[in-house]
Amino acid sequence: MILDIFTQKSTLPLGYNHPKLLKVFQNEQNLKALINRPALGITPGKDWPDRLSSVLQSVAPKGLSKITSMMCSSCSNENAYKAIFIWYQNKLRGDSCPSEEEKKSAMQNKPPGSANLSILSFKGGSHGNTLGTLSTSHTNYIRKLDYPAFEWPVARFPKYKYPLDKNQAFNKKEDKDRLREVKELVGSSACKCPVAGIIVEPIQCEGGDNEASEEFFKGLQTICKEKEIAFLVDEVQTGGGITGKFWCHEHFNLEGPPDLVTFSKKLQMGGFFHKDEFVAKEPYRIFNTWMGDPSKLLLLEEIIHVIEEEKLLENVNQTGAYFKEGLMSIEKEFKDLLHSTRGRGFFLAITCANAATRDKIVVTLKRVGIQVGISGESSIRFRPALIFKKEHVDVFLDRFRKVLKCL
Amino acid sequence: MILDIFTQKSTLPLGYNHPKLLKVFQNEQNLKALINRPALGITPGKDWPDRLSSVLQSVAPKGLSKITSMMCSSCSNENAYKAIFIWYQNKLRGDSCPSEEEKKSAMQNKPPGSANLSILSFKGGSHGNTLGTLSTSHTNYIRKLDYPAFEWPVARFPKYKYPLDKNQAFNKKEDKDRLREVKELVGSSACKCPVAGIIVEPIQCEGGDNEASEEFFKGLQTICKEKEIAFLVDEVQTGGGITGKFWCHEHFNLEGPPDLVTFSKKLQMGGFFHKDEFVAKEPYRIFNTWMGDPSKLLLLEEIIHVIEEEKLLENVNQTGAYFKEGLMSIEKEFKDLLHSTRGRGFFLAITCANAATRDKIVVTLKRVGIQVGISGESSIRFRPALIFKKEHVDVFLDRFRKVLKCL
Repeated sequence: MILDIFTQKSTLPLGYNHPKLLKVFQNEQNLKALINRPALGITPGKDWPDRLSSVLQSVAPKGLSKITSMMCSSCSNENAYKAIFIWYQNKLRGDSCPSEEEKKSAMQNKPPGSANLSILSFKGGSHGNTLGTLSTSHTNYIRKLDYPAFEWPVARFPKYKYPLDKNQAFNKKEDKDRLREVKELVGSSACKCPVAGIIVEPIQCEGGDNEASEEFFKGLQTICKEKEIAFLVDEVQTGGGITGKFWCHEHFNLEGPPDLVTFSKKLQMGGFFHKDEFVAKEPYRIFNTWMGDPSKLLLLEEIIHVIEEEKLLENVNQTGAYFKEGLMSIEKEFKDLLHSTRGRGFFLAITCANAATRDKIVVTLKRVGIQVGISGESSIRFRPALIFKKEHVDVFLDRFRKVLKCL
Repeated sequence: MILDIFTQKSTLPLGYNHPKLLKVFQNEQNLKALINRPALGITPGKDWPDRLSSVLQSVAPKGLSKITSMMCSSCSNENAYKAIFIWYQNKLRGDSCPSEEEKKSAMQNKPPGSANLSILSFKGGSHGNTLGTLSTSHTNYIRKLDYPAFEWPVARFPKYKYPLDKNQAFNKKEDKDRLREVKELVGSSACKCPVAGIIVEPIQCEGGDNEASEEFFKGLQTICKEKEIAFLVDEVQTGGGITGKFWCHEHFNLEGPPDLVTFSKKLQMGGFFHKDEFVAKEPYRIFNTWMGDPSKLLLLEEIIHVIEEEKLLENVNQTGAYFKEGLMSIEKEFKDLLHSTRGRGFFLAITCANAATRDKIVVTLKRVGIQVGISGESSIRFRPALIFKKEHVDVFLDRFRKVLKCL
C-alpha cells in the first residue's frame, strides 16, 4: 500500500480506480471511440469537433474562446510557439500574402521564410522535451546537453525569501528587478532574434516549485502588451484544479486572460486555449496526424463532472490549507532540515537543508509507504489527487514527522 | 457507408470495430491500466517495463535490441535525434565527462554545451510538426513558414521515372547522383554544423509516395558507416505491415539494421528501436512525463496477435499485388489522367495529370463512398487496413473507373 502524493507526475486528478472513470469505457460508443481512433485534423467524424469544443470550453479560461488539441505537453507548447510565430509575422505582413522568397527559403530552413524569432523563457522554467521547447527549458543541464538549441533569451525568475510576510521588501524588489530584466531582454538590440512571445509557468514546477506574485505576472502581461508580443502561460502542471482554482493564473487577477494557455497532464490530453487572433488563416498550419485523442477527452469529460459533483475545488482549498499548516508547523519543529513551505491548494512544496537530505527523506518516505516528488535542487513537491482528504494529510504528516526524527 | 482506403492517415491496421480489439478493455486489468495511466519513466509499476519490452521486441527490426517508447511521431523523431546527438558527442568526448563549460553553456542555449550539430534530411521528407522535426521536413511551405528553423542540410531524394523496368538507366543514374550529393553535404566544410545523422523514410509518404531503390538505401547506409554518423529510418507511416513486411526497410536487404528506426501510427503509440550504443549513460536524458501509453500498448499487443493469426502480411502481399495490377491496368486505360502506379504491398500510389485533376478525383470518389488520401503535389495515396480483401479492391476499382470515365 502506498499513499501517493505525486500521482504519476501529477497526472491523475481522481487518483486510482475511480468508479466513475472505470465506467467510461463500459459504454459501447465510448469503447468504439477508443479503438476506432480518428485523425481529428482531417476526418474527425460527425460528433468530435463539437464534443471536443464543448468539453474543453466548459473549463476554458475566461476570454479564451479558441482551442487547439494535442496529445502531450511538448507538442502543446511547440504548437503554441508556432501559433505565436504565425501571428507575429502576420502582424508585420499586414494584408499582404507571404512572398515567393519567403515560401522558398522556408523550405530550405533559411530566413526570411524561416523567421528569425524567439520565445523568451525563464531560468528554472520547464516546458517540454523536444528541441523547440528545450530551448525554453532550463532546469538541469542533463536535459539539454549535446542538443542544438535556438539561442533564445533567458530571464531570471523571482527568487523569494520565506516566510513571505516577513520578507515583503526583499521580494518586492525581486519582482521589480526581474521585470526590468525581462523588459531589457525583449527590447535589446543585442538580441539576435526578436522576441515574439514570453512563456512562463504560474508556479515553476520542475525548477523547484518557485512561486511569483500577482504583481510579477501582471507586470509580465503589461510588458507583453506594450511590446506587442504574446503572453503564453504554461498550465501543464498547474492546471486542472490542483491550486484550488481550475487554472492557477486565475489567482493573479489579471486584467484580461493571457493570450495563450497550454495544458496537459491532469487534463489527460494536451492542447492550448487561445485568443481568436492566434487562429491561423490557412488550414494545415497547426496540424499533425492525431491532433489529440478522443478516448482521453472522454476521461476528461467524466473527470470534470466528478470535480463539480464532488466539489473537489472546495476540497482542494480546505484540505490544502490544512496540509500547508501542517507542513508549516513541521518546518518549525525541524528548522535545521526544512524551510520555505509554499504553494497554493494542493500544489505544495518544502525545501530541505540540501540535496542529500532531500533525497534521503524522499527515499525513507517511500520505505514507509509515502510517494512524493522531488523538485529543483533540494525541494520536495506534493501533488496529491484532488480527492485527497484530511485523513490522508494526517497519515502523511505523522509519517513525515517520524522520518524526520530518525534522520 | 464509406470504403476507407486511407484509414485515419494509415493509423488503423485492423480497420474499424475489430471484435478482438473491442474485447481488450473488457478485461478489468486492462481497463485499469487505461484509467490509472502510469508515468512510465519514473513509476511504471511492476509489470510495464517487461510488457513494453516483450510486445515491442516481438516486432523489433532484427538487430535492434533497445526500445524507447513515446506517444507520437514528432516526439519519437525528436527524441531519436537527441539520442543521436548524445551518441555523437560522447564519441568525441571519449571517456571524459562533460566539462563545466559545456554544462553551463547548455543551460544558456549556447555552444559548446548546446552542440552545433545537424540531422541531414531529404527534400520531400516529412518527420513531424515540432520545431526540430520541422527542420527535417520539406513537403509544403505552409507547414514551415514563419517558424525559426535549424539551418540543417537538405539533400534531394531520387525522382524515378515509371514504369521502373523501362527506365532503369535513368533511375540508376538518379540514385548515383543523389548519393553523391549526400556524400558532399555530409563532408562539406561549408556546412555550418556537422552532420550527426541522416533521417530518411523508406518511401516518402506526405511528400508524394516517392520510392527509392534497394541500392540507394544501401548506399546511404554505407555513407553513414564511412562518415561515422547515424542512419535513422523513419517507419512512422511505412511500419506495421502495410508494405508486406512488418518494416519497409526489410525489403532493402541491408547488411545490418539501421542504427535507429522510429515508429508510430499503426503501432498506436510512438517510439524508436535502436542499437545498444544509442542508450544514454545517464538517466533522464531521453525523458518526458508519460513516455508512451500502456493502453495503446495493449491495443498493439492484440493487433500483433491478429496480424499473425489472420496471416495478414500474406494478405497484404497477395491482395496488394492484385490491387497494384488493377491500378496499372486502369492507368493504361486512362493514360491522359494517370501515371506512375507504384508502391509495395498495400502502400500504393498513383499520380494524376495535375493537382486539379487529382483533387477532383478525390472529391468525386468520396461522393461515391470511397475515402482515399492525397500525397505530394498530384498523387493519390492508398492506405487500406491490413484486412482489405479482393472484394474491396474490386469495389474500389469499379468505382474508380466510373469516376474517371465521367471526368
